[in-house]
Amino acid sequence: MAEKKELRIGMIGYGLMGRIHTNGYKNVNNFFPELEYKPVLKAVSARSEDKLKSFADQWGYESIETDWRKLVSRDDIDAIDICTPNNMHAEIAIAAAEAGKMILCEKPLARTVEEGKRMLEAVEEAGVPNTVWYNYRRVPAVTLIKNIIDSGKLGRIFHYRSNFLQDFTISPDVPQGGEALWRLDKEVAGSGVTGDLLAHCIDTAMWLNGSIDDVSAMTETFVKERVHQETGEEKEVKIDDACSFQCHFGNGSLGLFEATRYARGHKALFTLEINGENASLRWNLHDMNRLEFFDYEDDDKVHGWRSIHVSESEHPYMDRWWIPGTSIGYEHTFLHQVAEFLESLETGEPCHPTFKDAQETQKVCEAILDSAASGSWKETGVEW
Amino acid sequence: MAEKKELRIGMIGYGLMGRIHTNGYKNVNNFFPELEYKPVLKAVSARSEDKLKSFADQWGYESIETDWRKLVSRDDIDAIDICTPNNMHAEIAIAAAEAGKMILCEKPLARTVEEGKRMLEAVEEAGVPNTVWYNYRRVPAVTLIKNIIDSGKLGRIFHYRSNFLQDFTISPDVPQGGEALWRLDKEVAGSGVTGDLLAHCIDTAMWLNGSIDDVSAMTETFVKERVHQETGEEKEVKIDDACSFQCHFGNGSLGLFEATRYARGHKALFTLEINGENASLRWNLHDMNRLEFFDYEDDDKVHGWRSIHVSESEHPYMDRWWIPGTSIGYEHTFLHQVAEFLESLETGEPCHPTFKDAQETQKVCEAILDSAASGSWKETGVEW
Amino acid sequence: MAEKKELRIGMIGYGLMGRIHTNGYKNVNNFFPELEYKPVLKAVSARSEDKLKSFADQWGYESIETDWRKLVSRDDIDAIDICTPNNMHAEIAIAAAEAGKMILCEKPLARTVEEGKRMLEAVEEAGVPNTVWYNYRRVPAVTLIKNIIDSGKLGRIFHYRSNFLQDFTISPDVPQGGEALWRLDKEVAGSGVTGDLLAHCIDTAMWLNGSIDDVSAMTETFVKERVHQETGEEKEVKIDDACSFQCHFGNGSLGLFEATRYARGHKALFTLEINGENASLRWNLHDMNRLEFFDYEDDDKVHGWRSIHVSESEHPYMDRWWIPGTSIGYEHTFLHQVAEFLESLETGEPCHPTFKDAQETQKVCEAILDSAASGSWKETGVEW
Amino acid sequence: MAEKKELRIGMIGYGLMGRIHTNGYKNVNNFFPELEYKPVLKAVSARSEDKLKSFADQWGYESIETDWRKLVSRDDIDAIDICTPNNMHAEIAIAAAEAGKMILCEKPLARTVEEGKRMLEAVEEAGVPNTVWYNYRRVPAVTLIKNIIDSGKLGRIFHYRSNFLQDFTISPDVPQGGEALWRLDKEVAGSGVTGDLLAHCIDTAMWLNGSIDDVSAMTETFVKERVHQETGEEKEVKIDDACSFQCHFGNGSLGLFEATRYARGHKALFTLEINGENASLRWNLHDMNRLEFFDYEDDDKVHGWRSIHVSESEHPYMDRWWIPGTSIGYEHTFLHQVAEFLESLETGEPCHPTFKDAQETQKVCEAILDSAASGSWKETGVEW
Repeated sequence: MAEKKELRIGMIGYGLMGRIHTNGYKNVNNFFPELEYKPVLKAVSARSEDKLKSFADQWGYESIETDWRKLVSRDDIDAIDICTPNNMHAEIAIAAAEAGKMILCEKPLARTVEEGKRMLEAVEEAGVPNTVWYNYRRVPAVTLIKNIIDSGKLGRIFHYRSNFLQDFTISPDVPQGGEALWRLDKEVAGSGVTGDLLAHCIDTAMWLNGSIDDVSAMTETFVKERVHQETGEEKEVKIDDACSFQCHFGNGSLGLFEATRYARGHKALFTLEINGENASLRWNLHDMNRLEFFDYEDDDKVHGWRSIHVSESEHPYMDRWWIPGTSIGYEHTFLHQVAEFLESLETGEPCHPTFKDAQETQKVCEAILDSAASGSWKETGVEW
Repeated sequence: MAEKKELRIGMIGYGLMGRIHTNGYKNVNNFFPELEYKPVLKAVSARSEDKLKSFADQWGYESIETDWRKLVSRDDIDAIDICTPNNMHAEIAIAAAEAGKMILCEKPLARTVEEGKRMLEAVEEAGVPNTVWYNYRRVPAVTLIKNIIDSGKLGRIFHYRSNFLQDFTISPDVPQGGEALWRLDKEVAGSGVTGDLLAHCIDTAMWLNGSIDDVSAMTETFVKERVHQETGEEKEVKIDDACSFQCHFGNGSLGLFEATRYARGHKALFTLEINGENASLRWNLHDMNRLEFFDYEDDDKVHGWRSIHVSESEHPYMDRWWIPGTSIGYEHTFLHQVAEFLESLETGEPCHPTFKDAQETQKVCEAILDSAASGSWKETGVEW
Repeated sequence: MAEKKELRIGMIGYGLMGRIHTNGYKNVNNFFPELEYKPVLKAVSARSEDKLKSFADQWGYESIETDWRKLVSRDDIDAIDICTPNNMHAEIAIAAAEAGKMILCEKPLARTVEEGKRMLEAVEEAGVPNTVWYNYRRVPAVTLIKNIIDSGKLGRIFHYRSNFLQDFTISPDVPQGGEALWRLDKEVAGSGVTGDLLAHCIDTAMWLNGSIDDVSAMTETFVKERVHQETGEEKEVKIDDACSFQCHFGNGSLGLFEATRYARGHKALFTLEINGENASLRWNLHDMNRLEFFDYEDDDKVHGWRSIHVSESEHPYMDRWWIPGTSIGYEHTFLHQVAEFLESLETGEPCHPTFKDAQETQKVCEAILDSAASGSWKETGVEW
Repeated sequence: MAEKKELRIGMIGYGLMGRIHTNGYKNVNNFFPELEYKPVLKAVSARSEDKLKSFADQWGYESIETDWRKLVSRDDIDAIDICTPNNMHAEIAIAAAEAGKMILCEKPLARTVEEGKRMLEAVEEAGVPNTVWYNYRRVPAVTLIKNIIDSGKLGRIFHYRSNFLQDFTISPDVPQGGEALWRLDKEVAGSGVTGDLLAHCIDTAMWLNGSIDDVSAMTETFVKERVHQETGEEKEVKIDDACSFQCHFGNGSLGLFEATRYARGHKALFTLEINGENASLRWNLHDMNRLEFFDYEDDDKVHGWRSIHVSESEHPYMDRWWIPGTSIGYEHTFLHQVAEFLESLETGEPCHPTFKDAQETQKVCEAILDSAASGSWKETGVEW
């Protein structure tokens, strides 16, 4: 076996995403042994030295940096993985690009279109490989949807609908801000469910069904004030607790989307359905390894929605895993994305979604918030 | 057993709804033997004498009338059941009210708010019992939802979403107009999926969750021209093939609705879900006898959506039917509505949904079409 | 329309089955208008005159008889419908046959093979049309299974499994005997779940998959004593509370069956699954209008179990009912059987399952009980 | 952080199980950081040097041995992991025990009770920690079942049923023997589906519901001859292709089990259901992260089977993983078992299932095969 090339990773942040990306780096070569590159956990950065040290020990990072700027400037780092809260994405990404580093940035790309634009300019100017962790594209069932659509099976598309339903902020006693709940703090997150949840729905939707051209949206903040964890004081909640929107896709189909953190009984119910002339497809994250498929070309008497257990070697990515009928989990979607990124370094092709792709999603998110604020339809300006 | 009072029915129209209402009239006393009233199939009316005669023979109507005006004026008729296409509702209902007849009118009440207003004024002036066949309220699982909501179990309501998905007009070869496809002819139907399908969703939604105050809607006509069956010529399709809308309910919750006849794989997929602070409920017509229920008060380790097979004697209406675990079907919802109407004659209470209730749904439908046309939010003016 | 021939019904018994058969007789011509015969509710018989009168009034029987022997001997009766407890089947059926009446007998045919043999001899000697109410053959989804199997689609069959799970006798406080609970009294019922529930599973299984040749069974009586309703005294429970068996079918496939009244959470969960070389099928009574179908000939990437909503006009019986996507219920299976019986009078063909067919099921039931008692395999002697 | 103690692993075999165990060893400390022990991949052994080298490189084993006896005798190895075909288990395990090594042995423990007995004696004599990889106990949903049963929630147990359905040997063109298909070669495997699939069902069943006391079984070999991969010649197939059995549990409940590789449409459908007086539970491997739960103590009107998405921090093992609503996969059950084994080294408690536990399963398997051969009930002799 030829010696593999090292891809020396510098990770910023060590939360949920820090852990799950790291897991992907550590295991990718076991399951994709043909890859030329091999991630090396060179350094991890965060402000709290104690926690950082403990994280580095647990996960096997060679070194730590309490100042991300030092990390970005180190010569022994090839790629920066940005797992910070959203308000740090732009500054870090731009610095990393200027330092010539590859960048793997958590989603959403940025808080605003303006931030995203500067980030995109930075990576394009620097010519560095870049990708954004819209991991759900790498669910085998979702990739299979993409393959079926690309085969032309569906014919003309009429409808696309997608939800992302959670329930974790229903209690008014849940505070905002701080390490655990920065997603409820508008300064840090940029928006609420729009950037956090709908961004996933939108990235997947445009990947599968093309550009979203205009939107009409509605947002709501059900709990108006929450204690802020940094000050201990009640403070206005400025993010959107819930958001829905209607839209037109460039291909003439209609879209209907909704995200909320107030749908009692749903933990992370990302759903999608696409209805074409000849076939329809449906998927949800709670039953991640299943794909539902309706084929109008089946015989009349036995038309029905098929529940496909996406666990066989014919299915995307599944030749890498175990045996038919057994499942993979959430973490594997990130490992797949690591594999795709490593492969893109071999081929020189972009690893989608790139900053450019993610910026298109950013435009839709911003149009949504504008539409909700103004009560009118907004063009997105998406170029897909 | 005391002799029952007769309710002499005059039916206008003999299509699907004519048959299913008649089935209800014929069987209601077998399953609700305590009712004081007993429907008698006095006469049926339609234009085509031959078909009418055959229908009357098959279903046991005592007589026929080829002119509905004659039927309405007959002294031996107590109640007029309007099962005609929508464009006849107003004229017949107003004449029937003026003749002092009770009225059972198919949904939607009318083509327009203006028609509905005149109908409502007519029945109120005449003081005649009236009801509109929004039959889905009488699905046992849906009535059970109503009971659970009324018990206060859900707490504050955050979300309501409802779809009605069909696929029968996808082919451009499907014509418009004529006896079978008048629902595609705007002159006759008034609107497309809005009055046909969303009207059901809206009636149920307002019954369960109160008034819809404003709406933002989107409509589409996917197939622009279809052969008209009366002329054999290609003619513009003016109805809405698909319609979605966002809304605010009076109780502060958000609504999201969609109806279409272009969702490949779905025949009559009426769905609804309501998310409250403490519990959520979900139902669909394809699995009509099941109710899904999430109760946040269950123990933490065993939280989950329950699939309730609504077939036990504790469940609404189900003490009338067979044995636990066995199902009833679509027709029973109409039979239940007949029973409710007969009971209302005993009690003197209105049989909901009345013309007044149905007119509120009409207002929402009209606001939807206005919003879709103008691209802006519209107040509905609903008083619930 | 030609005048229909009358089929004058004399019903014995007025419990659940009495009601549901009557419902079928009353409505069959509305939905099968082409039939030459028309049932007429001539008389109903039972011992309790008051209840009988009330039943006859409610359901429209022309007359009553408190002595079934009188009913059987009346000249104005063409067909006897036996809805009594099992211990009366043989005596009534034999008398009815001798009187030259057609017979529609509730299942199981009899308490024992010996009783069944005498009944079968009686109808064969008399040459009278006869049928047994194994109604589940007439569930549209089950008939569709039969059609698919008959088409050869499945190839070689390997497995058949079927359960019938209930939970209504778990409490030891449930008594035995009397009008409501004669099914727990061995003298009256003949056996417990074997004749009550497994008989359904077996009739359907042999209809779909051919003869059951030998069996190895296990039975259990969980609650050993229950108050008998006739005496008010604790009495040994002699029926089987639960029964499972393994078997070989004549076609070489293996069978596995189970019935119980102690499966908490299941009301009437009749399930069946058949696995063939090229396809498999699965159905259950709780979701009566759905059929699950796996077709190995589907493309590799989209293999999956289809959930067929058996509600379209292409499906068995469904052209008689409402619209695609809407359901029928439990009672309709009986109405279908009435239609089949009436049609058999026109064609002169037997209406399956006949007494002969039902006697084969009886043989399997008896072999099961013998096997359970002896702990060894038993040949059934079935001729299918 | 205190330095961890090393557990130096010597693995024998590098097939599917070799890979998935190794994955567990490599990642366990990331997710169970509190463990005192840390597995070290010291050496792997197999006959084919080339493949072995490649495997060791890919997965990070420090060294290789082409003779397992050398591995077993190495001083720098603490624990032997046996991932070979079944015919090697006894010899290796006994040698390893004699060398004082801990043993982690793939299931089934052995080909026969006699082999298992010798293995058990060896580990008991040597006093070495030992465990068998019945991994399904470590599915969070299955562990949750165990917890619910142990809480007494179910009351008296009436029924236990469990299947393991596959379809991969339906084609007669599938050969037997060789590296890939040794499970079809009786010499190597010991038995067919009984040891391969039912052994899983039985281990889980006895863990949850106690001893299986006697059995009545049926086996079948559908395809009588297959080409043997080592000789290229048609050879009799001696394993059981399918097996079902009925049984009595020590607690008085009834069991019904089935396994097959001829159930078209099922890949690895391990199912189980347990029915108690007050509650029932149901699970299947295809939807591994869901548990179905029926609680009779729920209010009458809302009784139903709950679908619990076992993905929250309150659920067994799930505080180690990601976020509510997201899934883990098949491999995690092995990682959990590694964690349990490491923890058992700290506490000195046995890591169940031990060789002793697995030997009880072996007894049931042998009784099954004996019963099927003789057509009579067999006592198992299980001591649980």
